[in-house]
Amino acid sequence: MKETIVVQNIERADEAVIQGLAECGVATIHEAQGRIGLLADYMTPIQQDRCVAGSALTISGAAGDNWMMHVAIEQAQPGDMLVFAPTSPSNHGFFGDLLATSAQVRGVVGLVIDGGVRDTRDLREMNFPVWSRYVHSQGTIKETVGSVNVPLVCAEALIHPGDVIVADDDGVVVVRREKAAEVLELSRARMAREEEKRVRLANGELGLDIYDMRPRLKKKGLKYV
Amino acid sequence: MKETIVVQNIERADEAVIQGLAECGVATIHEAQGRIGLLADYMTPIQQDRCVAGSALTISGAAGDNWMMHVAIEQAQPGDMLVFAPTSPSNHGFFGDLLATSAQVRGVVGLVIDGGVRDTRDLREMNFPVWSRYVHSQGTIKETVGSVNVPLVCAEALIHPGDVIVADDDGVVVVRREKAAEVLELSRARMAREEEKRVRLANGELGLDIYDMRPRLKKKGLKYV
Amino acid sequence: MKETIVVQNIERADEAVIQGLAECGVATIHEAQGRIGLLADYMTPIQQDRCVAGSALTISGAAGDNWMMHVAIEQAQPGDMLVFAPTSPSNHGFFGDLLATSAQVRGVVGLVIDGGVRDTRDLREMNFPVWSRYVHSQGTIKETVGSVNVPLVCAEALIHPGDVIVADDDGVVVVRREKAAEVLELSRARMAREEEKRVRLANGELGLDIYDMRPRLKKKGLKYV
Amino acid sequence: MKETIVVQNIERADEAVIQGLAECGVATIHEAQGRIGLLADYMTPIQQDRCVAGSALTISGAAGDNWMMHVAIEQAQPGDMLVFAPTSPSNHGFFGDLLATSAQVRGVVGLVIDGGVRDTRDLREMNFPVWSRYVHSQGTIKETVGSVNVPLVCAEALIHPGDVIVADDDGVVVVRREKAAEVLELSRARMAREEEKRVRLANGELGLDIYDMRPRLKKKGLKYV
Amino acid sequence: MKETIVVQNIERADEAVIQGLAECGVATIHEAQGRIGLLADYMTPIQQDRCVAGSALTISGAAGDNWMMHVAIEQAQPGDMLVFAPTSPSNHGFFGDLLATSAQVRGVVGLVIDGGVRDTRDLREMNFPVWSRYVHSQGTIKETVGSVNVPLVCAEALIHPGDVIVADDDGVVVVRREKAAEVLELSRARMAREEEKRVRLANGELGLDIYDMRPRLKKKGLKYV
Amino acid sequence: MKETIVVQNIERADEAVIQGLAECGVATIHEAQGRIGLLADYMTPIQQDRCVAGSALTISGAAGDNWMMHVAIEQAQPGDMLVFAPTSPSNHGFFGDLLATSAQVRGVVGLVIDGGVRDTRDLREMNFPVWSRYVHSQGTIKETVGSVNVPLVCAEALIHPGDVIVADDDGVVVVRREKAAEVLELSRARMAREEEKRVRLANGELGLDIYDMRPRLKKKGLKYV
Repeated sequence: MKETIVVQNIERADEAVIQGLAECGVATIHEAQGRIGLLADYMTPIQQDRCVAGSALTISGAAGDNWMMHVAIEQAQPGDMLVFAPTSPSNHGFFGDLLATSAQVRGVVGLVIDGGVRDTRDLREMNFPVWSRYVHSQGTIKETVGSVNVPLVCAEALIHPGDVIVADDDGVVVVRREKAAEVLELSRARMAREEEKRVRLANGELGLDIYDMRPRLKKKGLKYV
Repeated sequence: MKETIVVQNIERADEAVIQGLAECGVATIHEAQGRIGLLADYMTPIQQDRCVAGSALTISGAAGDNWMMHVAIEQAQPGDMLVFAPTSPSNHGFFGDLLATSAQVRGVVGLVIDGGVRDTRDLREMNFPVWSRYVHSQGTIKETVGSVNVPLVCAEALIHPGDVIVADDDGVVVVRREKAAEVLELSRARMAREEEKRVRLANGELGLDIYDMRPRLKKKGLKYV
Repeated sequence: MKETIVVQNIERADEAVIQGLAECGVATIHEAQGRIGLLADYMTPIQQDRCVAGSALTISGAAGDNWMMHVAIEQAQPGDMLVFAPTSPSNHGFFGDLLATSAQVRGVVGLVIDGGVRDTRDLREMNFPVWSRYVHSQGTIKETVGSVNVPLVCAEALIHPGDVIVADDDGVVVVRREKAAEVLELSRARMAREEEKRVRLANGELGLDIYDMRPRLKKKGLKYV
Repeated sequence: MKETIVVQNIERADEAVIQGLAECGVATIHEAQGRIGLLADYMTPIQQDRCVAGSALTISGAAGDNWMMHVAIEQAQPGDMLVFAPTSPSNHGFFGDLLATSAQVRGVVGLVIDGGVRDTRDLREMNFPVWSRYVHSQGTIKETVGSVNVPLVCAEALIHPGDVIVADDDGVVVVRREKAAEVLELSRARMAREEEKRVRLANGELGLDIYDMRPRLKKKGLKYV
Repeated sequence: MKETIVVQNIERADEAVIQGLAECGVATIHEAQGRIGLLADYMTPIQQDRCVAGSALTISGAAGDNWMMHVAIEQAQPGDMLVFAPTSPSNHGFFGDLLATSAQVRGVVGLVIDGGVRDTRDLREMNFPVWSRYVHSQGTIKETVGSVNVPLVCAEALIHPGDVIVADDDGVVVVRREKAAEVLELSRARMAREEEKRVRLANGELGLDIYDMRPRLKKKGLKYV
Repeated sequence: MKETIVVQNIERADEAVIQGLAECGVATIHEAQGRIGLLADYMTPIQQDRCVAGSALTISGAAGDNWMMHVAIEQAQPGDMLVFAPTSPSNHGFFGDLLATSAQVRGVVGLVIDGGVRDTRDLREMNFPVWSRYVHSQGTIKETVGSVNVPLVCAEALIHPGDVIVADDDGVVVVRREKAAEVLELSRARMAREEEKRVRLANGELGLDIYDMRPRLKKKGLKYV
C-alpha cells in the first residue's frame, strides 16, 4: 500500500539565504524561529568546528539498506544536504567514502543521517561533513526500495525536501523553506542583539541587571542568605 | 515547602591546594582519596587535553530552566567552577557563549553540568572548558527559581559549595573542601610512587614482580598451561 | 567449576599479513570477509586517525578487577593487541598509563577493551591506541583470577587468542587467524575494485549506472514523479 | 515566531472503522498499510492485554509542562485518544489520576505520551489505558503554552489530529484518517489470510512449503549439511 | 583514606508517620514536599500494585560485591527498608531469596537497590517488595568492605539513614526523617484537596475552570482557531 | 566468503537432565557452573513466573530479516528452544503468533531472541514463552540467508547448537551440552545447601555467623560505631 517514489523536482531556498543561515549557527536559528526544528541530541558530527547549511534532499530507506542513497545522488544539485532516515532504527554504516566521492562531485555539501556512517577518517580528509547517530562499519544491502524527496521524520524532526538544514558542533536544525528568509532576518537580528549583550557582559555587567531579573526573582521568593 | 536560596558567603579551599590538585589529575585524586567522589561516566569534556580545578559554585535549577545561572554568576569569585544540576534530567542547552563571557569576566574557570551545553565551538575558542552530559542547542526558559551554593547531587555525586572540583579528559572528581590539603598530599605521594613504578616498568620489570603477585595468584588457583 | 588458566603458547598470524590488514581498514575487511567479525558500535577510539592491527592476546577478568592485565602482559609479544572482556558489564578504568608503559615495552600495539580506560591524555601522548566502551577513572581491585588466551566474547564478537584485530576510527573487527591471509587477499582485491569505482564516481558516473541498478529498481516498483 | 494554537474542529474517522481497527491489532495494521506508522519501540503500556483505538487529539507542550493537557481535554470528544509530545525530551509525569478522571468523563479512550506518566496503579484501576515512554512521579509546571490539534512528531512518528491511533501490548501505530477505511479492509483481509495459514501451520505444514521458499533459498546458496 | 563503618544506632521516624506516608503514595509526597526527593526513573518494582514505606537502612558496597548486605541485616529493625547503592554502576544480582528470608525475619519491609536483584519470582511469592535498576542473575563476591548507615547517593538522590523511603508503582521517594511528620500532614492536605477536585472533575467541570486558567492562557497568547 | 549453512543433525543433552535444570532456575545454575553463561541483562520475558529449559536450536539471520526462522523450524525437535541472534542489532519483530503456532506444533518449548518479538498477547495466550531484547511490531523481510545450528553470540553469550538454555524471570543462562549432567548435579547440591541455609536464616541466624564472616570483616578494617 505504501508507495515508493522519487520526486525529481523540488523547490529550494535562495542560495544567499542558505549561506546566511550557515553563518548564524544552530543555536541562534533554533532560538530565532521559536525554538523549533532541532534534531535529536544524539546527532553528532564526525568532524569539529564546521557549520554547514544546505537544501534537504530527503531519503527514506529500510534499516540496513542503502540502495536509495544511490538513487538520491542522481537527484542532487549543488548545495544539497543529504538527509537520510531509515524506516526503523539501524546502526549500519549506510554511507562511506565512495558515496561521498559521488556526492561531492555533484556539489552535495554534507550528510545528516539518523543511522550509521563509515570511513570517517576518509570523509574528514575529503572535507565532507557528516552528522550521524552512529559510526559503524556494518555493511548494508540493496534489496528494498524507498523514497527520495518525500517528507520524513529524521532524528525526531519533520523534514520536507528543500527545507534548509543547518548543522554545526551543537547539532542539527531544520528551517522550513518558506520561512528561510524570515528566519535568516530574525537570526541576524538576534545575533546583533547578542553581540551588544556580549560587549556589556564582557565589560562586567551582569545578566541579572541587563535583563532586569531582580524584581521578578524577589517576587518568586528567592532569598539571599 | 522547599526553600530557594542563594548562599552568598561560602568557604573555599586554599588556592595553592586547588592548583596542586589540577596538576594531579582525576584518576590520581580519585585513588588517593579512597576511590570516592567520581561523577558519572557520562560527563564528557567538549575540549581535549585540559585539566582544570576550581571551587564548586553549586547551582540547582529546574529542568530546561537556566535562570539560576545568571543568579549564580553574581556570586562567582575568581577560581570558581560552576556546577549545575537540574532537579530532574534535562538535555537542554543551559549554557552558551554569552553566559561564558560573563563567567569568564569574573574569573570562573569552567563549568560542570549534568545537562546540556551549546555554542561549544565558541566555548573552545574562548578557552572556557566544559564537562557536560549533553551537547544540545535546545533553549531554556527563566520561570522557576532554584538555589545557589547549596549541597546537591550532580551526576550521581554529592557536592557541597566550596568543594574542589577537578576535571580532565577522564571525567570529573569532587574533593571535600576540608580534605583538600590532605588529598593533595596523598595525591602527590601517589604520583611519586607511580613515577618510580613507571621507571621500573619502562625498564621491563613486570607488575607481577613489582607487586609480588605470583604467590597470591597461585593460591587463588591460576594455572599456567 | 570454571577453570582459570593462562595459555602461554598461542599461534599468531604472519606479521606481514597483519600489517597488510592494517592498511585495509575495518570497513574493507568486514566486507571482504563476508560482513562478519565486527565488534559492537559502542567501541570508540580515544585517539583520531589511527588504524592498528595486532594479534589478539585475550584477557577475561571480573567486573571492576584488572588483576589479569598484569598476568597478561607477561605473555605479550611484539605485535600483540590486548583484548579485555569483563565477565559482566563494568565501566571501571581497567587500564591506565602504568599498564600502558609496561605493555609498550613488550611491543604491545594497543588495547581493545569492553570496559573502561583512564589516563587517556597520557595514553595519547604515549601514542598507545585504545578502543574502549567507557572512559572512566573508577579504580579496580585485584581479587578475582580470570584467564588469559582463551576464546571469549568481547563487545558481542567471539575472539580467539591469536586472531587478528584491526581497529580504526570506524570501530574494531576480528579476523580469524586461519583466514587472515585469505582475508587480506580479498581485502586488497576489494580495495582495488573500490579504487576503480572511486575514479569513475569522481568523474561523475553514477552508482546507478556503474552497478546497473536501474532495471532492478524499476522491477521493484520505484516510480519517478 | 512560533504560533501556539488550539484547533477546535478536526475531522475524525468513522467510529465503526476505528473499532474495526482495534480488533486488528498493531502488528496486523502496520503490515497492512505497508509497514509504516509505528511509534518508537520505547512506548510501553502500563497495563497488559488491552488493544485500544481512538482519534488522535494531539498535544504539543514544553518539557516538564503539562498545561496544555488541561486545554486539550476541553477539546476532547468521545472516542478520542490523547497524544502528547513534549517539544524536547522529558521524563516528567505529565499525567495522573486527576487528568484521567477529567478525560474519562469526556469519553477519552486512552493516552499515548512520549514522556512520563504517574499514578499508574490508579490508572489501571480506573481502566484508563496508557502507553508512555516513562513512568515517573516528577511534577510538572504550567508556564509555557503549546498547541492542540496540530500535526506533531510523537515517538518518531508523524501524527495528524484525527488520525487513528491503535495501541496494544506490542506498541502503538498511527493510521492516516483518510486511509483508515482502506487500511481496515486490508487488515481484515490480512487477518483472514493469516487465519488460513495458522490452520495449515497448526496442522504441521511448514512455512518453507506454504510460502514456497525452498527454490529461492537454494538459489541464494543456502547449504544443508 | 576512606573509612568503612557500620553505624549501629540511628534515629528513625515515628512508625505511625511512616505508615501514614505509605498511604499517600510517591507522587503525592513528592508534590507535598516541594518536588524533591525522587529517585531516578530507572528504579522499577519487581511486583505490581504495592506501596511500601520504611526507614532507610543505608548500605554502601562495591560494584559486584554484596558482602555489606549481610552486615546490614544484623542492624535491621522491624520497619526498615534496605537501601543499597554500589560505589560504581553494577548490574549484578546483589540480593536474592536467601537474603530476603533473613531480612524478612527481622522485619525488613523491602529493598531499594541501585543495582541488580535476582530470584524475583521467589521474592514475589515471599511478598518481599523490591525496587531495582536491574534484574540479573550475575553473582557477587565478598571481598571489599563498605559502610552501613551512612549518607549516600542512591539512584541520584541523597539518602540519610533513618530517612523515610516510600515506594510504589511510580517509583521511589525519600523524605527527610526530620520532616516526615510535616510532609505527612502536607500530603494528607493535598490528598484532601485532590479528592475534592476529583469529584468536580468527575462531574464534568474542566481543569481550565477549576484552576482559572483561561485568562492566563489568553495573556500568554494562546489562540483558538 | 561467509558460508550460510543449515546443520541438520546436532546432539542434544539428555531430556531428564534438561528437565532437571528447569527446576533449578537461572541463578542457581549460573552459580553452580562457576558464574558463566549468563546472557545480557536486557533479555526480558514477555510472561511472568515461567522457568523453561530446552536444547538450543541456533539461528543466525540478518538484521530485520526473519527468513531463517522458517528454515529453522523444519529442524526443530520436541524440547528445542529457538535461539535467534541477528548479525547486527535490530529491534524488528522477527517472531509472532504464526511462527509460534508452527514451532509449537513441532514441540518447540520457547524462544530466546536478541531482537524483537510481536504478538506478545497471543504468545502469552498460547503459553509460548519468549525472552527478548525488544517488543516491537516492525515487520521483517526475507532476503538474506543465514545459518541454522552454528555456534553464535546471542546477547553477549556464546551458544553452541544443542547447548541447554534455561530461562526464567531473572534472565537466561546457557549450559554447555557436555557439561549439562555435571551442572545439574552441582545445581542440585547447591539447592540442597541453600535450603539448609534458608531454614537457618528463617530461624533468625545471621549470614554473618553462618558464613563466619566476622573475623574477616574485622581484618579488612570494618569499624562498628
